[in-house]
Amino acid sequence: MRVALIGAGFIGSVHAVNLAAHPDVRFDVFDVDTTRARSVADRHGTGVVASLDDAFDPARFDAVLIASSTDTHAAHLRRAADAGLAVFCEKPVDLDLDRAREVSAHVAARGVPAMVDFNRRFDRDYAHLRELVRSGDLGDVELVQLTSRGPSMPPLEYVAVSGGQMRDQAVHFFDLARWITGAEPVEVTALGAALADPRITEHGDVDTSVTSVRMSTGALVQIDCVRRTAYGYDERIEVHGSAGMAEARRHRDGAVTRYGAGRVVEDGLHPGWFERVRPTYAAALDAFVTAVREGVAPSPSLADGLVAQAVAEAATAALTSGRTEPVLTVTP
Amino acid sequence: MRVALIGAGFIGSVHAVNLAAHPDVRFDVFDVDTTRARSVADRHGTGVVASLDDAFDPARFDAVLIASSTDTHAAHLRRAADAGLAVFCEKPVDLDLDRAREVSAHVAARGVPAMVDFNRRFDRDYAHLRELVRSGDLGDVELVQLTSRGPSMPPLEYVAVSGGQMRDQAVHFFDLARWITGAEPVEVTALGAALADPRITEHGDVDTSVTSVRMSTGALVQIDCVRRTAYGYDERIEVHGSAGMAEARRHRDGAVTRYGAGRVVEDGLHPGWFERVRPTYAAALDAFVTAVREGVAPSPSLADGLVAQAVAEAATAALTSGRTEPVLTVTP
Amino acid sequence: MRVALIGAGFIGSVHAVNLAAHPDVRFDVFDVDTTRARSVADRHGTGVVASLDDAFDPARFDAVLIASSTDTHAAHLRRAADAGLAVFCEKPVDLDLDRAREVSAHVAARGVPAMVDFNRRFDRDYAHLRELVRSGDLGDVELVQLTSRGPSMPPLEYVAVSGGQMRDQAVHFFDLARWITGAEPVEVTALGAALADPRITEHGDVDTSVTSVRMSTGALVQIDCVRRTAYGYDERIEVHGSAGMAEARRHRDGAVTRYGAGRVVEDGLHPGWFERVRPTYAAALDAFVTAVREGVAPSPSLADGLVAQAVAEAATAALTSGRTEPVLTVTP
Amino acid sequence: MRVALIGAGFIGSVHAVNLAAHPDVRFDVFDVDTTRARSVADRHGTGVVASLDDAFDPARFDAVLIASSTDTHAAHLRRAADAGLAVFCEKPVDLDLDRAREVSAHVAARGVPAMVDFNRRFDRDYAHLRELVRSGDLGDVELVQLTSRGPSMPPLEYVAVSGGQMRDQAVHFFDLARWITGAEPVEVTALGAALADPRITEHGDVDTSVTSVRMSTGALVQIDCVRRTAYGYDERIEVHGSAGMAEARRHRDGAVTRYGAGRVVEDGLHPGWFERVRPTYAAALDAFVTAVREGVAPSPSLADGLVAQAVAEAATAALTSGRTEPVLTVTP
Repeated sequence: MRVALIGAGFIGSVHAVNLAAHPDVRFDVFDVDTTRARSVADRHGTGVVASLDDAFDPARFDAVLIASSTDTHAAHLRRAADAGLAVFCEKPVDLDLDRAREVSAHVAARGVPAMVDFNRRFDRDYAHLRELVRSGDLGDVELVQLTSRGPSMPPLEYVAVSGGQMRDQAVHFFDLARWITGAEPVEVTALGAALADPRITEHGDVDTSVTSVRMSTGALVQIDCVRRTAYGYDERIEVHGSAGMAEARRHRDGAVTRYGAGRVVEDGLHPGWFERVRPTYAAALDAFVTAVREGVAPSPSLADGLVAQAVAEAATAALTSGRTEPVLTVTP
Repeated sequence: MRVALIGAGFIGSVHAVNLAAHPDVRFDVFDVDTTRARSVADRHGTGVVASLDDAFDPARFDAVLIASSTDTHAAHLRRAADAGLAVFCEKPVDLDLDRAREVSAHVAARGVPAMVDFNRRFDRDYAHLRELVRSGDLGDVELVQLTSRGPSMPPLEYVAVSGGQMRDQAVHFFDLARWITGAEPVEVTALGAALADPRITEHGDVDTSVTSVRMSTGALVQIDCVRRTAYGYDERIEVHGSAGMAEARRHRDGAVTRYGAGRVVEDGLHPGWFERVRPTYAAALDAFVTAVREGVAPSPSLADGLVAQAVAEAATAALTSGRTEPVLTVTP
Repeated sequence: MRVALIGAGFIGSVHAVNLAAHPDVRFDVFDVDTTRARSVADRHGTGVVASLDDAFDPARFDAVLIASSTDTHAAHLRRAADAGLAVFCEKPVDLDLDRAREVSAHVAARGVPAMVDFNRRFDRDYAHLRELVRSGDLGDVELVQLTSRGPSMPPLEYVAVSGGQMRDQAVHFFDLARWITGAEPVEVTALGAALADPRITEHGDVDTSVTSVRMSTGALVQIDCVRRTAYGYDERIEVHGSAGMAEARRHRDGAVTRYGAGRVVEDGLHPGWFERVRPTYAAALDAFVTAVREGVAPSPSLADGLVAQAVAEAATAALTSGRTEPVLTVTP
Repeated sequence: MRVALIGAGFIGSVHAVNLAAHPDVRFDVFDVDTTRARSVADRHGTGVVASLDDAFDPARFDAVLIASSTDTHAAHLRRAADAGLAVFCEKPVDLDLDRAREVSAHVAARGVPAMVDFNRRFDRDYAHLRELVRSGDLGDVELVQLTSRGPSMPPLEYVAVSGGQMRDQAVHFFDLARWITGAEPVEVTALGAALADPRITEHGDVDTSVTSVRMSTGALVQIDCVRRTAYGYDERIEVHGSAGMAEARRHRDGAVTRYGAGRVVEDGLHPGWFERVRPTYAAALDAFVTAVREGVAPSPSLADGLVAQAVAEAATAALTSGRTEPVLTVTP
């Protein structure tokens, strides 16, 4: 598969490493900043794509991987679809839900394979949780707890364009809740606060929040999101069912234990999010390549992205309305 | 200290064991069912109190321990106060918050030492969490998660008079949230469902719920309550602060690990709640005896009981209103 | 059962607590130091035995519990047997193996129920390990690792009369190895050193040792003994069999975990050995009382004590001989 | 660095992956089986070396990586040294200790950089243990426990040429004991048995063994080796010092925990040794490349290999002699 990688920033560089290591892929890089594109291309002995026209040229590429800034996703998706290229797109499709629906519908109409990068679905432990649910080992899912805590406040400039904690951070976990339970979100309640950095309120945002979701099966979901911990990157998921409970535990950055007087010290969590989730990017890419090769629809789909985004919309509304907000139906 | 134990049912028997083992206490037992009183008294080589008049006779007793049915607490409290006896009372003071306030005010006016049995405050691990908060080791508390999951549905007859999951089960954790954070509850949101036994809805109750509370310091609190797990009795608390996080982990009923092909099996949780919290009852009793002897006000006070109950009221309202409900101020 | 407790020192006081709490026992106390006897007796509202003649008077007692100094055990055992009393004896029967055999034979000839206090057999986790072995879940036992590490050097005066690390400390674990595996010790090799306190060598003793034992089934056993750790009291056992492995993990003195930057801190081990093994004394006593009442031979028997002692003899010899030493057969 | 990889079997293929991924290396492959060499070369887009003469041609290569069968190591090492090439050699230099010494001396005399692949030194957790020792955090090392348990019996043909459990399996841990403690082995005692497969005795070998080593500092070391577990690949190290204890825990193959009635099930150990130690090979290679580039002696040296081998010799002797065997001095 010939892939045009669009975007050579941090996340683009992550994809570049995985594209380079994938046995069935060759790729070239585009970035509006040509120096940046060149730097990534050189690191992997591959080429630079001179223009977006070239990146979307079906004679040169079979697929595009969209890792450019969020505000460009929609246009690139549309163009890829029009060119008949398979497309692997960083989330979200667009911060505006209506625009995201529109573009998703357009891509669907063109019939090209399209996948949104909810990379956490490719975490081995989360996949294991899902298997346990689907196998019936846990019985009916009744309660799910998801924890998402980042190690440090993002820059305020990022906050300003991020769409807020629900759309930017919690959205991954809204998706995981659906994916693991196999149920659809119905309504949402949320409390939020600006505890790590009060300036975040100037952007109408919060840095600490607790969200509860009722699913179509009656299952309840709790999500706690924190932007800044003092102890590294922390995520975990717990699924309580009628026949048992399972959790994907926190990961530790080493397996050494020290025993001293009155205390036992173990290695801490990963300092940053990337160390924790790194392997999921390669696995997601491989799932995309495999799906396209086998002619099956890649998953998670753009529609999956829309649903998670609709939960984020409802949660964002609930933060200020003081009401339980319904999750709107976003798929046809 | 001479104690009249009022109530010789399950919880009365628990108190009897601890009263018997306490070096500074001697006690007799009253129960409306004389046979039951006799049985408990015989087990500990102590006497039966013939009547309530005797139980509240200051010539015979210094204190009463109220472990009778909930609907009798208020009257017994009032009578103990009028007799000038110290009083240790099972929670709640009364299921009706107004009546509970009234009685608490009456007891306060009489000036007798009074303590409500929020026994979990005497759990070593929870006390350790609180110490970590008070010492500043965790910085400002920002997020607290409390899990309370019982091993089996209570009988429906119990459900009918319990006041519902918030007043009966969650109330302990509302109290712990206050006690550990040192902050006051401000507003509450909740989602609940009848997943373990749908018949519970006939009593206007739920068996599975997620509750979020905003505290006066801005800290957010999440509580998940489940009436029936498939894996024993499960409670844990996690406190995330600006300078670190701490958790009181689940307890295991043994420390044996078995390693087999592809899996590691450890001893499970306690099958029932009592095994888990047993030591807290003796510690609570000792705290009461010590406070009375030293002439300091016992803690938790009846007023502490009222606040936790006010949160339960707000949470119960939130279950059906679909709104974030304010916690009413209940203390003068 | 009427019990004469002989010895009111530390371990005698431990037994007194359990005797007092046992529903089927009443007891009085003897000690050569009458003040000490009185102090223990008063604490439990029981009587002082005026003389050894009284302690061994079958008209007054059904059993004796020997918790006096080691050098008196043999004589007390003999006297109890002659008086037809059941006897529960602290280990060892006698530091001299020949004398211990002689006395054990004498007691056996008299036919009185006799039990040696290898209290660790009554640890729940160790009993669980044994069950796993006996149920066949672990297959054939092939390798056992036992760790015994005390928190602090015993006083040198104690070391002088203790019989050395093998007879005093390791002996419990020699017994556990037999009891858990169901196999008999055949030969022993050992290395030892005086690392915590070099003065111990003046008593021909070591404070740190590693011992390996070959069992009759071919299974290999490793025991590491340390007199002084910097991290509290540490014991654990691991059993590797052809069908699986199981371990009785270290115990922690609390269940709180603190997460900080780059590290996770948990509660430490128990500071002293007694906190760790406390419940085993009551369970051992109850096993003795039950066996006597039901007319079955109490276990562990004096013969069990002899075998463990014979391993300790061989291990002590191996420390200096530089040879693998055979374990002598000590039972008829 | 231009590297000739000699040997394209399993371990050669492992090295090929790491050579391919190393930014500062390019490599070609030699194997007496040309098809095998071709297959590995093709996988990484690199070339096949036609003959050993070519592999040792300093005009074509800067270094050789010897991953061929054990009986060829000595000759290849000698030839590399004579050609002035840096050399990275799989362990052991030669199963015959005298021959290994001779070759090591020859390589030393030629002055080429040479490293033996004790890859476990490059395990992050073991390096962490060593750091803790060197920093003084653990005080003086007093006792070390090393566990090495493979998941399945090697084929008997392999056993026949392996040199036995001590030289083949335990040798890695003899090296780690030296490396972590910074002390030299003095004497050794060992017990062994054929429990997993009695046929191994026909090769004078054992499959289960316990070995104790006294180090030059007085520290004691225990090593247990098992060829076949029922629960996957198990290795761990524990270091007890005068100021604390530290352990490198077993690794788990996943972080999911399932809670059921009376038990908690976690993911098991790695099924095979390679999954556990995989990252150490790349780190060892990088250490070699870095040392050569910086002109410092690579570590572990051939002399380190000799010392570990001398311990294995003594341990092998102790298995049958029933004596504590001295470790011979093998370095000049």
